[in-house]
Amino acid sequence: MPTGHITLAHGNGGRYMRELIAEVFANHLANPELDIDADAALINLPPGKVLFTTDGFIVQPLEFPGGNIGSLAVHGTCNDLAVCGADPLYLTLNAFIEEGMSFELLDRLVKSIATTAKSCGVKVVAGDTKVLPRGEASGVYFATAGIGICQPEVSIKIANIKPDDHILISGPIGDHGVAVMLAREAFGMRGDLKSDAASVLPFTRAVRQHPGLHFMRDPTRGGVVTVCHEIALATGLQIQLDGPSIPVREPVKAVCEILGYDPLYLACEGRVVAIVEASSVNEILSQWRALPEGELAADIGTISQGVPRVQMKTELGGIRILEELEDDPLPRIC
Amino acid sequence: MPTGHITLAHGNGGRYMRELIAEVFANHLANPELDIDADAALINLPPGKVLFTTDGFIVQPLEFPGGNIGSLAVHGTCNDLAVCGADPLYLTLNAFIEEGMSFELLDRLVKSIATTAKSCGVKVVAGDTKVLPRGEASGVYFATAGIGICQPEVSIKIANIKPDDHILISGPIGDHGVAVMLAREAFGMRGDLKSDAASVLPFTRAVRQHPGLHFMRDPTRGGVVTVCHEIALATGLQIQLDGPSIPVREPVKAVCEILGYDPLYLACEGRVVAIVEASSVNEILSQWRALPEGELAADIGTISQGVPRVQMKTELGGIRILEELEDDPLPRIC
Repeated sequence: MPTGHITLAHGNGGRYMRELIAEVFANHLANPELDIDADAALINLPPGKVLFTTDGFIVQPLEFPGGNIGSLAVHGTCNDLAVCGADPLYLTLNAFIEEGMSFELLDRLVKSIATTAKSCGVKVVAGDTKVLPRGEASGVYFATAGIGICQPEVSIKIANIKPDDHILISGPIGDHGVAVMLAREAFGMRGDLKSDAASVLPFTRAVRQHPGLHFMRDPTRGGVVTVCHEIALATGLQIQLDGPSIPVREPVKAVCEILGYDPLYLACEGRVVAIVEASSVNEILSQWRALPEGELAADIGTISQGVPRVQMKTELGGIRILEELEDDPLPRIC
Repeated sequence: MPTGHITLAHGNGGRYMRELIAEVFANHLANPELDIDADAALINLPPGKVLFTTDGFIVQPLEFPGGNIGSLAVHGTCNDLAVCGADPLYLTLNAFIEEGMSFELLDRLVKSIATTAKSCGVKVVAGDTKVLPRGEASGVYFATAGIGICQPEVSIKIANIKPDDHILISGPIGDHGVAVMLAREAFGMRGDLKSDAASVLPFTRAVRQHPGLHFMRDPTRGGVVTVCHEIALATGLQIQLDGPSIPVREPVKAVCEILGYDPLYLACEGRVVAIVEASSVNEILSQWRALPEGELAADIGTISQGVPRVQMKTELGGIRILEELEDDPLPRIC
């Protein structure tokens, strides 16, 4: 690994860029399809429906309990493919690197990308690096694009959602948002909170061929309420959340109460919201609860005819309207 | 189109982000595969070899004579697929947008992405937007990833290159680098210089099935010399450029002489370097010269056994060693 810091010359196409790519990126990400002498990677796709997606990552700080911007860049794009019912296979990686960033930190992040990709079963087959002048990019931004394959019989789309469907969540919410916020702000509160950032593939694979499964999405930016609004807007149906059923860990609850955040709007990076037929709730929940990190999976609400909005029954039995997120409560969470 | 400026809330996953995506991105980029309610796009791939690539774009200024960061983001990735012999079919788009950017400018850039994609025959099928605090991102950075299809019989790779092959260039060099530099710096020199940013597909399609074609690459960052170094490094062969044969427009030459740049190291964004068998030079050159922008296509050198380095015969008959680029003569050119 080169020592020292990134300079503008590491972005110019010449010797330093070649060394940066060979010694940091290719060193960790090596695989048969990654050819740093080629302009594009030749990939093999097994039979099935092909899905293509992308995501960008600007989280601050770059490292936080439970993950870093590198692991997030792999999980984020793989999870977008997973919730569509696909197996992610190939990724591309863009790095926008700030002049002055230490090679040591960049190397650690790229190593994390490699480890995470391996654990998700994907290969990083192409990439690009750009270097930005000091003061831009706050360290590094990543963008990943991903290709996945979905079996022909899998059909997961928002249009499948029907009245009387139930809303399931695969685990407790708000951990990622709170962990990143605490890592960023020196509140003096730490505890054992860590991000839930993880692959959701075990959860999506377990249920994606279940005939009662209608739709899945990972509640990232904007949290569970934002997924509910997307559903209400796309289907014209009403969303009824059952407040007491929504799993929130005690420390997340405590931090949110002290600082005035609502966990329903906080990003998760390793959870799945699934919309399922009422008759499939128990079977799907028990499949999820048997998985690691799935023990708190819960039935948190229902879909119904009515004014297309999102509302929640509170602990005291009242109804609270959950408005669409407007101001940003917690920027740069992913 | 929304009026005013981008705020951090346009990146939070909620209402403003939804409006930004619908009214700017989806408005211009609409196509049957682009579903803003989905996490990933379902795409159809015709038979053939599948190629996957990505590129990032940080050019300053965002708009320059002959193009802008939006058109460049499409051409750059499509050209990487084209020089591998593929037809680009699908793109994803990441936008890292600076808080305070005007909607008017962003809309103009996204419109340009749409127009350019259409002219290249590609569809933007998925995307992501992030908003960065004022002072980062200098307006906007884009990243695009692309999928293309290549016919099974096309074989373009650096390993095909052999001693006695010739080096062809599809047009004059340095226009992009000089045009962007003049747009950036207030030198008071303008003239009619504009970037060569364009799709290279007409050039690659014309010759990619020619049995005498061994390799193609677009000389972007680092210019023609950097492509030659990549070849020398990968093949262990020597590169002999013939200085007087290399096409450089007079105004580019003039600006480079005044400011001390070497056009051989300046980025092109619409040219192709091809390595071909000696017996195919005339046929390939005449195919290129018949194309618009191809009239100055030229045979600019040869490959030979010898110390793997890049050297050039000058106008006066001397030999000049062209070193690998080290310091960045012109950062943020793409």
